[in-house]
Amino acid sequence: MTTVGNLAPTIGVFDSGFGGLTVLRALIQRLPQARFAFLGDTARLPYGSKSRRTIARYAAQSAQFLVREQGAEFLVIACNTASALALDAIQDAVPVPVLGVIEPGATAARAASRTGDVLVIATDATVHSHAYAAACRAHGLRALEKACPLLVPLVEEGWTDHSVTAEVIRIYLQELTAEAAAQGLNPDTLVLGCTHYPLLRPLIESVIAHGVPAGIRVIDSAQATAEMAFRLFGRQEFESLPGHTILSTCLDERVGGDTAHPTEIRCFATDSVEKFERLGSRFLDRPVGKVELVDLGG
Amino acid sequence: MTTVGNLAPTIGVFDSGFGGLTVLRALIQRLPQARFAFLGDTARLPYGSKSRRTIARYAAQSAQFLVREQGAEFLVIACNTASALALDAIQDAVPVPVLGVIEPGATAARAASRTGDVLVIATDATVHSHAYAAACRAHGLRALEKACPLLVPLVEEGWTDHSVTAEVIRIYLQELTAEAAAQGLNPDTLVLGCTHYPLLRPLIESVIAHGVPAGIRVIDSAQATAEMAFRLFGRQEFESLPGHTILSTCLDERVGGDTAHPTEIRCFATDSVEKFERLGSRFLDRPVGKVELVDLGG
Repeated sequence: MTTVGNLAPTIGVFDSGFGGLTVLRALIQRLPQARFAFLGDTARLPYGSKSRRTIARYAAQSAQFLVREQGAEFLVIACNTASALALDAIQDAVPVPVLGVIEPGATAARAASRTGDVLVIATDATVHSHAYAAACRAHGLRALEKACPLLVPLVEEGWTDHSVTAEVIRIYLQELTAEAAAQGLNPDTLVLGCTHYPLLRPLIESVIAHGVPAGIRVIDSAQATAEMAFRLFGRQEFESLPGHTILSTCLDERVGGDTAHPTEIRCFATDSVEKFERLGSRFLDRPVGKVELVDLGG
Repeated sequence: MTTVGNLAPTIGVFDSGFGGLTVLRALIQRLPQARFAFLGDTARLPYGSKSRRTIARYAAQSAQFLVREQGAEFLVIACNTASALALDAIQDAVPVPVLGVIEPGATAARAASRTGDVLVIATDATVHSHAYAAACRAHGLRALEKACPLLVPLVEEGWTDHSVTAEVIRIYLQELTAEAAAQGLNPDTLVLGCTHYPLLRPLIESVIAHGVPAGIRVIDSAQATAEMAFRLFGRQEFESLPGHTILSTCLDERVGGDTAHPTEIRCFATDSVEKFERLGSRFLDRPVGKVELVDLGG
């Protein structure tokens, strides 16, 4: 058995809360040999209700913590709001490649859609940014976005398989497809544009299977992000990202091979470690272990 | 017509967000001649997911803004989390009387309850603080508290008269009364321990009228707080509050009389003025007008 030792790259994963643990879960499945440092800026969540300037400042501080103090060589911004509003600011703040969740979601939608019309559900802040619509447009897709602010609290309440949640999803999707029809769109793809929504995927697919809306394929942007991270590692495509020069070694070699090596995960939060530890394991699908408290100021 | 002129006292009202506008609405009804300065610390909401230390620091800064920069002579903490976790810290930070929302809610419950057993619904953070249970116990009441984390998002979604919301309320109240029965309690009073809940009062009373749970009287802690503020003004009972010495004039005289004098209201927020202005009028039941952005740091 070979050991990856110090060669194992550290991937920093950042979210305003702990929803991004669904992205970490998908990353672990794709890159099980990497080291992961996850930071939830729980003291300052939700980013969604804050201004672009504030979000950029918070996200840059968080990214710097992961790179400077945890040695992250690659950052995944597992937060739709920060990806939508602060990706440039984060990239400016750190000298490593940064991948957000929106571009991978749009890329996966492009691959999935035949009609070229896609639906996006997300939080209010993500929708207001129109970041998915812009990313989809760059891929030649027409996207209709809808804010679904009840879905995050329903997930956090644990009602991921509940009749009330199914009814809320049905109402949201009915409103969204009615609006799509009114705009002359013919959507065949639904992008889950929030890191909490992967936990609702079975229920969403069940609502869709019952005809509302019919025959729509679901794209999970958490999974799409892990896929893109995996491809970046495998194909040495980091040149396509800014900040790639720090990667002196091909990360692909450093995460390949030793599948028996356990994944190393460290989780950090800026506040409310208790809620993080209590709910986090549901999102990560394994115990999050001891969450370490860090103070980023503010 | 007499004019109150500079005599009209300024009452500072503070919340982490804009839910506390329901308390301001109740205060305006009771003290229409006062000046009001409302601050929503929207850049740092929700307080509920933060630690006591963090909440105390944020709340003290906010209180100081209202007193030092807006000239508030009396503070109402229209935020259950701050009232539960930081009332002492706020009182230490400012030299004026401070009234929270929890003690008035418990006082009103004491007046309403015959059995001495009360139910309290609130956010997760308020319930975890057990502040209502402690305040009720001090009045000789037994209180059973339940976190209802879906109700705030349902109010903010505007679903205050929606079948989904009625179903959620029914589920929460069924769970709560089942737990009360299991503990041998005989509750006859339900305290709404969150500033968003007054907007759900008609729906909650409708669910109760349909038998779940039967014959429970609803206490709205926003209204109870305004009542207590009114009594404090009227009876010069400020001696019962710390920090009363700054009130050199009996406030009662300064708010009485000229009912034609329009209430002066200034609203401040630390971020997200747009959402505040959009949703705030629903809570205040009148236009909130131009919300002024302030920077408290952090």
